[in-house]
Amino acid sequence: MRTLVPFDPTNPNTRLSSLLSDDERRAFAASMLADVLDAIRRAGGTPTVLATAPLEADVDAPVAVDDRSLSVAVNDALADELPTAVVMADLALATPEAIQRLYDADADVVVAPGRGGGTNALVVRHPEFGVDYHGTSFLDHLAAADAVGASVETVDSFRLAVDVDEPADLLDVLVHGNRGAAGWLRDAGFRVAVVDGTPEVVRD
Amino acid sequence: MRTLVPFDPTNPNTRLSSLLSDDERRAFAASMLADVLDAIRRAGGTPTVLATAPLEADVDAPVAVDDRSLSVAVNDALADELPTAVVMADLALATPEAIQRLYDADADVVVAPGRGGGTNALVVRHPEFGVDYHGTSFLDHLAAADAVGASVETVDSFRLAVDVDEPADLLDVLVHGNRGAAGWLRDAGFRVAVVDGTPEVVRD
Repeated sequence: MRTLVPFDPTNPNTRLSSLLSDDERRAFAASMLADVLDAIRRAGGTPTVLATAPLEADVDAPVAVDDRSLSVAVNDALADELPTAVVMADLALATPEAIQRLYDADADVVVAPGRGGGTNALVVRHPEFGVDYHGTSFLDHLAAADAVGASVETVDSFRLAVDVDEPADLLDVLVHGNRGAAGWLRDAGFRVAVVDGTPEVVRD
Repeated sequence: MRTLVPFDPTNPNTRLSSLLSDDERRAFAASMLADVLDAIRRAGGTPTVLATAPLEADVDAPVAVDDRSLSVAVNDALADELPTAVVMADLALATPEAIQRLYDADADVVVAPGRGGGTNALVVRHPEFGVDYHGTSFLDHLAAADAVGASVETVDSFRLAVDVDEPADLLDVLVHGNRGAAGWLRDAGFRVAVVDGTPEVVRD
């Protein structure tokens, strides 16, 4: 299935700027993107990076550049071809198995929620459905599907629910990740330390 | 399957004390516990509350009081009967379907991770396996299973991964919950507001 992976190569994961320099953020974001593209391919998907600007580094997928807002760019791409999946680039815990569950759900609209009311991954099979990533997009997407008579299924996945955009998320990457992004963090000196019985991320 | 639900009735969810009074925290914790017990029963399980002190309010399950540390109390109970599941009382998003996936996984040790390296739900079928909830318990439980030759399966569930113990978690309860705990929050004046495109919890 064609799978769009929205990606901001210029100023990604701004909420990690307390821990990572600008260059480090870009490098870490690129490593998460590579993991997500790999998981998509292993699940049998065909990824396209939907980037807000041209990429500096090579990636293992075609890149479409669209500097409009995320929702506008995705809806324009949905008009081209269905079914289409949309998977966020910072799902560093995404495994092929989790992506496969997304593809295998056969409703008109399949939604994998992110924490905090967001939508981390979608499959769209209904021509009248459009995305809107503003606000509590998970609820908005359920309502939008209902409004056009599209059937809906949700995918209950921890690995798709964790989008890595806050310092606390790095702990989940270090505990559950075993691919490029987790390796990048370890190479950069990050590790898990247990302080008073509670796991924390520290940097050596 | 016998399912232990560890619960602290006296000082639960301390990290919510910035938002809730002591009485409110106890009432909210009791509403989450009731939701979890209901989800366990609907999934065909047989819940027992493993409480650190006698409960003041009635609950729809037998209560065993054990004031020792969580890991000691659970391991003592595991010695009585296998298989046994252990499901945390603050999994306010847990659905019967998610609990069912836990029961249906047929490894010797089944683990549903929580965010931040924790273990939110377990099934134990191997007599030599013991729990240790200190530190990065998810990784420790995988290692402990390996050490006794027990097969392991993980359950990839957002609904089992969210343990409600921080203010940000209330957002997930309000977005994804449709039972007692979500109703309790709404009755107490909590709702989701979208501020600059980002969902936040506010209290009227």
